[in-house]
Amino acid sequence: MSTEAVSPGELSATDRTRLRRHRERGRTGRTDLYDVLDAGLICHLGVVVNGAPRVLPTTYARDGETLYLHGSSANAGFVAADGHEVCVTVTHFDGLVLARSVFSHSVNYRSAIVLGTATVVRDEDERRHALRAIVEHLVPGQWDAARSPTNKEMAATAVLALPLAEASVKVRTGPPADEPGDLDLDVWAGVLPATVTFGAPVPDPALRPDITVPGHIRSFSAPRPATDA
Amino acid sequence: MSTEAVSPGELSATDRTRLRRHRERGRTGRTDLYDVLDAGLICHLGVVVNGAPRVLPTTYARDGETLYLHGSSANAGFVAADGHEVCVTVTHFDGLVLARSVFSHSVNYRSAIVLGTATVVRDEDERRHALRAIVEHLVPGQWDAARSPTNKEMAATAVLALPLAEASVKVRTGPPADEPGDLDLDVWAGVLPATVTFGAPVPDPALRPDITVPGHIRSFSAPRPATDA
Repeated sequence: MSTEAVSPGELSATDRTRLRRHRERGRTGRTDLYDVLDAGLICHLGVVVNGAPRVLPTTYARDGETLYLHGSSANAGFVAADGHEVCVTVTHFDGLVLARSVFSHSVNYRSAIVLGTATVVRDEDERRHALRAIVEHLVPGQWDAARSPTNKEMAATAVLALPLAEASVKVRTGPPADEPGDLDLDVWAGVLPATVTFGAPVPDPALRPDITVPGHIRSFSAPRPATDA
Repeated sequence: MSTEAVSPGELSATDRTRLRRHRERGRTGRTDLYDVLDAGLICHLGVVVNGAPRVLPTTYARDGETLYLHGSSANAGFVAADGHEVCVTVTHFDGLVLARSVFSHSVNYRSAIVLGTATVVRDEDERRHALRAIVEHLVPGQWDAARSPTNKEMAATAVLALPLAEASVKVRTGPPADEPGDLDLDVWAGVLPATVTFGAPVPDPALRPDITVPGHIRSFSAPRPATDA
């Protein structure tokens, strides 16, 4: 129940993560990185296949200083990623920023880009640990509620690990930033705020009629910032 | 006002777009591709920079058989993309699929992956046309409502064009697909459906007090499938 008072420190910018544009949107604390990652449900994994980029959506979880991505042992992207440079990007779309000029239109967002060498997790215990982290990240309480994976199911599951060593975070919030000379124009300006919202749980048609929605699903809400975890 | 009755045909699978896993989730019509792209607000652009992948979120629009991506002329990703192979992925997260077994957990989603050689649009007229398409894709009616870009603003804006020649579409919908032997387990199963929802427009604090929310913003809703466009 005690809260961790020690700051996890700063992100060190590298030539690859130093922001060239909109530096004012940069966030440099490691907790900023955690916040963006922990609030996400899917990420986009970038790999190089035969010299060309491939971008694959998948689920993930952060576990301390490691990002675990979920896939299958038949996933071509995971095979291409193993032992190679990857890029994992998590983006939250927070709203459309409507300015008085077309040029000043923008998007409110939070994004994290993590670069590094990924590794397919081969250790059985770590793979189970990572899977648990992913399931619990998506729906806290769900790992213990559902039937655990068999050895055969574990063998069909792949997990990719990526250290959080090189990363950048960008955040844009707030109203449009029109040029001063445009402020008097006869044009509405403001933000259309967006969020991901979840509807009421939809039971499987095959659900046993005596089973009711359990508490951890009734109380489910997402996305959740790190501080709620 | 007439609706186009001619089907745009099928997506031709290539070695790179043929699905290896969950083939039942594949969609092969070009209209399936259009639907996924037209319902999206941001895409993830994959490029190769010094041999390593980079995944960058940005806005875009489909214009017929071309995808236009928005960036800045200082955008390192766009420089790396010009004349090179890229991958553009659009993913809609539609819900969490909670199964009776951990292994059968899944995500409901619609995703499109477009592969090909991208080109930075250099023709001024095409760039303006593309920008208009992107703004109108995000908020229909907004291009004419806002001040048009000056030549200087156009010079600072970059647009990347990618033909819709090689693409794959995957869609998962519906309840969990548990193993028959798990159906009697004492575990709730079903879907937590997710959508992107927009809140009421938030006026810029600097908005002239006599300007009210115009009709095209009052009636704004997103994401919109192609058939609503």
